[in-house]
Amino acid sequence: MDIKGFQFSAVEAAIKKPGRKDLALIFSEVPAAACAVFTTNAVKAAPVLLSAEHITSGTAQALVVNSGNANACTGEQGMVVARDTVRLVAEKLGISDKTVQVSSTGVIGVQMPTERLLDAIPGLIEGLSSGTLDDVAEAIMTTDTFPKMEARSGQAGGISYTVAGIAKGAGMIMPNMATMLSFIITDASVEPAVLEKAFRRAVDTSFNAITVDGDTSTNDTCLIMANGMAENPVISNGSPEAHDFEQLLNNVLLSLAKQIVKDGEGATKFVEVRLTGAASDADAKRAAMAIANSSLVKTAFFGQDANWGRIFAAVGYSGIEVDQSRLSLQFDDVCMARNGVFAGGDAEARGTEVLRKKEFTVTVDLGLGSGRATVYTSDLSHEYVSINADYRT
Amino acid sequence: MDIKGFQFSAVEAAIKKPGRKDLALIFSEVPAAACAVFTTNAVKAAPVLLSAEHITSGTAQALVVNSGNANACTGEQGMVVARDTVRLVAEKLGISDKTVQVSSTGVIGVQMPTERLLDAIPGLIEGLSSGTLDDVAEAIMTTDTFPKMEARSGQAGGISYTVAGIAKGAGMIMPNMATMLSFIITDASVEPAVLEKAFRRAVDTSFNAITVDGDTSTNDTCLIMANGMAENPVISNGSPEAHDFEQLLNNVLLSLAKQIVKDGEGATKFVEVRLTGAASDADAKRAAMAIANSSLVKTAFFGQDANWGRIFAAVGYSGIEVDQSRLSLQFDDVCMARNGVFAGGDAEARGTEVLRKKEFTVTVDLGLGSGRATVYTSDLSHEYVSINADYRT
Repeated sequence: MDIKGFQFSAVEAAIKKPGRKDLALIFSEVPAAACAVFTTNAVKAAPVLLSAEHITSGTAQALVVNSGNANACTGEQGMVVARDTVRLVAEKLGISDKTVQVSSTGVIGVQMPTERLLDAIPGLIEGLSSGTLDDVAEAIMTTDTFPKMEARSGQAGGISYTVAGIAKGAGMIMPNMATMLSFIITDASVEPAVLEKAFRRAVDTSFNAITVDGDTSTNDTCLIMANGMAENPVISNGSPEAHDFEQLLNNVLLSLAKQIVKDGEGATKFVEVRLTGAASDADAKRAAMAIANSSLVKTAFFGQDANWGRIFAAVGYSGIEVDQSRLSLQFDDVCMARNGVFAGGDAEARGTEVLRKKEFTVTVDLGLGSGRATVYTSDLSHEYVSINADYRT
Repeated sequence: MDIKGFQFSAVEAAIKKPGRKDLALIFSEVPAAACAVFTTNAVKAAPVLLSAEHITSGTAQALVVNSGNANACTGEQGMVVARDTVRLVAEKLGISDKTVQVSSTGVIGVQMPTERLLDAIPGLIEGLSSGTLDDVAEAIMTTDTFPKMEARSGQAGGISYTVAGIAKGAGMIMPNMATMLSFIITDASVEPAVLEKAFRRAVDTSFNAITVDGDTSTNDTCLIMANGMAENPVISNGSPEAHDFEQLLNNVLLSLAKQIVKDGEGATKFVEVRLTGAASDADAKRAAMAIANSSLVKTAFFGQDANWGRIFAAVGYSGIEVDQSRLSLQFDDVCMARNGVFAGGDAEARGTEVLRKKEFTVTVDLGLGSGRATVYTSDLSHEYVSINADYRT
């Protein structure tokens, strides 16, 4: 991956259990156009509050992020450590505090080990000479079982540029306007208006369309930095290049979002839930999320049980307009139910076949209008319960 | 239990697996004042549609109920079997179709074994001479591990009367205006207006305040029948007796609702979630339900992990007004957090002690106003996953 003007570093600051890197830095050699979306949770972590304040400048040059401690529900002491971290990073890099974004992920309600964190920063800065984006992707993992990365290249005015992103997920995943943590960097030169529009649209159909357990975190953050160092002609609003850029960004974010679902805590299935024929797109999204968050539907997926009635029940309680005599349902291309009732024939056997696969699609048509939405989810397994019953031990 | 003028029966109609009664009847010797609340799910079972039509008369004399098949998502064929069942029961009892309520619980989307059901009805009617309410409570069980009953006696004008109720629950439990199935009978003579007001209030603070898995069923029904055969002076609106009756009814419904939660699928904990200090009662209810439905909170309860941060996160994403610096939280009488941050001291050890108990209270104070609500929930265990992964097999 060749992405110009970004440097990376990750070190072990002993915030998590020993032996794993837990503090990382992304640095752009020049100030980058930036925007970010943060959790809609009313309980917001200290780094979220501080980063939201900093991003209003529209510029970012560095991101410092730790795993192992969310710095959430930590009050004024949490704000102090977030500010001190930013100040030290800015000072060592010789940039302004306001251009430093800060992010945390991990356990909620425990004070950050301030001294260990601050002591690790000089080493973190030194590491910039040799680190990679892969190191950062690894350092932000908590219960994730694999690092999540995606990179795509595009062209503008005959000049190549790259969009790369990393993410972490696993639990407390039903982002609303942002995901747990995802950082996107590009060396493309892009008008801020184009960047923001493309970014917000891409977030909406990727991170805002996934759910693992229906819990929206206190720390969700998705940040993009565009430093322009590919030196392409600036991508301007309404141009074909802006359209290409948006498409490319979409693909990167969707890939990361799907990786988060596939690595959902205890996940054994990756399920694409498609809602069509709704009275509106908003109705479709609401019903799709009701299906994707239903414990009964998710345990049936885990059990490979073609229990389609639970899916109709979830649609029914989602609060949208429904005419039960018009409902139909497919597992992949197997029609399980039409006109609200079982399709008959060998549907049960064929539907069960589909559910044995690791990835499949559930399509529900409401037969009412042209509203549609797609969301991505995992199943609910024994492993999910084990992981979350013992998370802090 | 002495409840005048009601007869009961339960038989095996081979709707469920062999060896268990699955068809039951409650019969009042005289027409009873009746009201009912049904599921708010837009996908409604056939018996719900038919019973809702019948209850508009304000009178019921019989209830026929089966377990093992929900008769939901069964289209016109489902309506036909519900109507035929009612017609046959009415004919054999010599009463009007309109005074027969019908209810079903079990798997969704499978057609009812009509012949076996109708063939069992003559035997069901014969059984009225010897059956008990206990028999009915057992026959309506699905994944329930114990029958749910409650009875209380009151007095009006020096005459004793009894209110008795049964319920079934276990899974797909987050009733909204009704629970899975609950039937209340009383021999009290009560003005219909008193009956309805007391009933709706009691449902609101009992069945509408519990959740096992956040899934609202297609079949939820709560029915009350008051046949007046205690021959007490009629309980009239605004009287002290009306107040007593309402209190009594409340206690019966709350007891049944708590039994449902205690027998929630895989439940190892019974948790009372109290929300206080909210801007409104509605806000309090919404936040309490967000806590009670959070998979992360429920798995932490199962793991006996005093992970209070997840509870604040759930309050934060519930969509209500929150000031995180004012939040406080207790497990029973142990303060875990105040002013939004960890309470310190030995709170962790003492909080963990509380969570080791089978029953405990979680109290969250928002510090904003006087709105309050209480909901009841269970934990999320391995057993829940096992039961629901294999429900139909």
